[in-house]
Amino acid sequence: MTLRELTQRIVDDKNFLCVGLDPLIERIPPPHAHNPIETIEYFLHRVIDRTRSHCVAYKINWAFFERYGSKGIALIERIIQYIGPSHFLIADAKRGDIGHSSEQYARAFFEHFGVDAVTVSPYMGLDSIRPFTEYEGKCAIVLALTSNPGSADFQLHPCADDTRLYEIVVRQLSEAFSPEQLMFVAGATRGGMLRRLRAIAPDHFLLVPGVGTQGGQLEEVWKYARRRDGSGLLVNVSRGILYARGNGSWEEAVEQAARSYRAQMQTLYPSAL
Amino acid sequence: MTLRELTQRIVDDKNFLCVGLDPLIERIPPPHAHNPIETIEYFLHRVIDRTRSHCVAYKINWAFFERYGSKGIALIERIIQYIGPSHFLIADAKRGDIGHSSEQYARAFFEHFGVDAVTVSPYMGLDSIRPFTEYEGKCAIVLALTSNPGSADFQLHPCADDTRLYEIVVRQLSEAFSPEQLMFVAGATRGGMLRRLRAIAPDHFLLVPGVGTQGGQLEEVWKYARRRDGSGLLVNVSRGILYARGNGSWEEAVEQAARSYRAQMQTLYPSAL
Repeated sequence: MTLRELTQRIVDDKNFLCVGLDPLIERIPPPHAHNPIETIEYFLHRVIDRTRSHCVAYKINWAFFERYGSKGIALIERIIQYIGPSHFLIADAKRGDIGHSSEQYARAFFEHFGVDAVTVSPYMGLDSIRPFTEYEGKCAIVLALTSNPGSADFQLHPCADDTRLYEIVVRQLSEAFSPEQLMFVAGATRGGMLRRLRAIAPDHFLLVPGVGTQGGQLEEVWKYARRRDGSGLLVNVSRGILYARGNGSWEEAVEQAARSYRAQMQTLYPSAL
Repeated sequence: MTLRELTQRIVDDKNFLCVGLDPLIERIPPPHAHNPIETIEYFLHRVIDRTRSHCVAYKINWAFFERYGSKGIALIERIIQYIGPSHFLIADAKRGDIGHSSEQYARAFFEHFGVDAVTVSPYMGLDSIRPFTEYEGKCAIVLALTSNPGSADFQLHPCADDTRLYEIVVRQLSEAFSPEQLMFVAGATRGGMLRRLRAIAPDHFLLVPGVGTQGGQLEEVWKYARRRDGSGLLVNVSRGILYARGNGSWEEAVEQAARSYRAQMQTLYPSAL
């Protein structure tokens, strides 16, 4: 799905839910197959079946697959096929390297794996990001303000012009790359800063992790991070959906969690939108 | 090879050459096999055969393999076996994520692939780096000052306390993690800054890319970046060795380039060391 199609889908469905696929073998309910790859594959098929109609995007967390080396990466290839073109597909892989290496990563993610966006760290500068911005309909998602405690170490470091590092990053990158080329990651756990970030980059998409398990509130995120057209925002939920539990089967609990996030999102949209 | 063994090897051989494996199908001399993976595998076997006795470390640039998806990652697994335990093995993969994802990456690189070090971006802070520092004999190699033009965008950004961002990164991380846990990437293309970085972190290893194709001078790097014990420095050369050409065969040119870098390094060591 292209970024343009995603934008329209969000407005049409009043829904900006991205389901994060971070499969942890230790948390997958039994029965388990004789090898972890098969167990994870079965689990993810059921998760995708149960969430497909409630979300607009999936985010694949590379770490949880790469743990199994080439077999884990082959599983990613099959999962991408299983999801198909109906959703916006994000490779959460946190890449970024000198230009000629970033070019190879961009080929990997956009040509080989065929995803629609890939997360990128900004530390190495604009030339490390550029190769990810040069594919029509696809984009880089650059880390600006992350949801972990360590984000305070450097992202919030005060800079000479009385701003924080993340503000410098967002300002420079939103000037250099259009909203069609680049999104930002902005953690839900830092509400007031979400507002400042949105003020600096009024037109770029924000991908917001950290709602649910990490403690961010959906309503606050909507208030601070949405774009004026009611789109421009994706909220990612991983563990809060994958490992949801209820009175029925785990599959029902997963579906119920996704349905509930979508319903909450729809209530946030004023009827006029 | 552990970091301790690497330190000793460098002093014994007066040699701190790391060969970077960035195989680009478009630059590999003919004849080519019927698929790129086989062509690259044959090429890398010959490069490793010809450079093995002239270097102390190999650096595998993940981007150039991931371009081929799971088959490229499977090739990495075979190349790591081919090199064996005789050299310090670096996964140049530029990772870093929230703690529980970084834990999975650390498992991938140190347990599954079995490398000795992995490059990590510092943008997400200390908790994103820590999981890579908790394996005995292995370490994180954190981007501090990179060799690309874009490194000026954020790494050299002035901070409130009249220092540059890379200095903040090096100060905080060298205080938080020991030289057994963490190295820094410090580009050869910025000589004066190499000296400042070495002054902030006198005891940590520096991995210096950018010598050769990118224009950094070996003698200047040795002068500014070595540790007092004559170790603590790795200089990486990728394209300057992989695509070296001379009067004889390409294999001879590759070996001659590696031999020549090693010989230059040995002349830098005073006889007393």
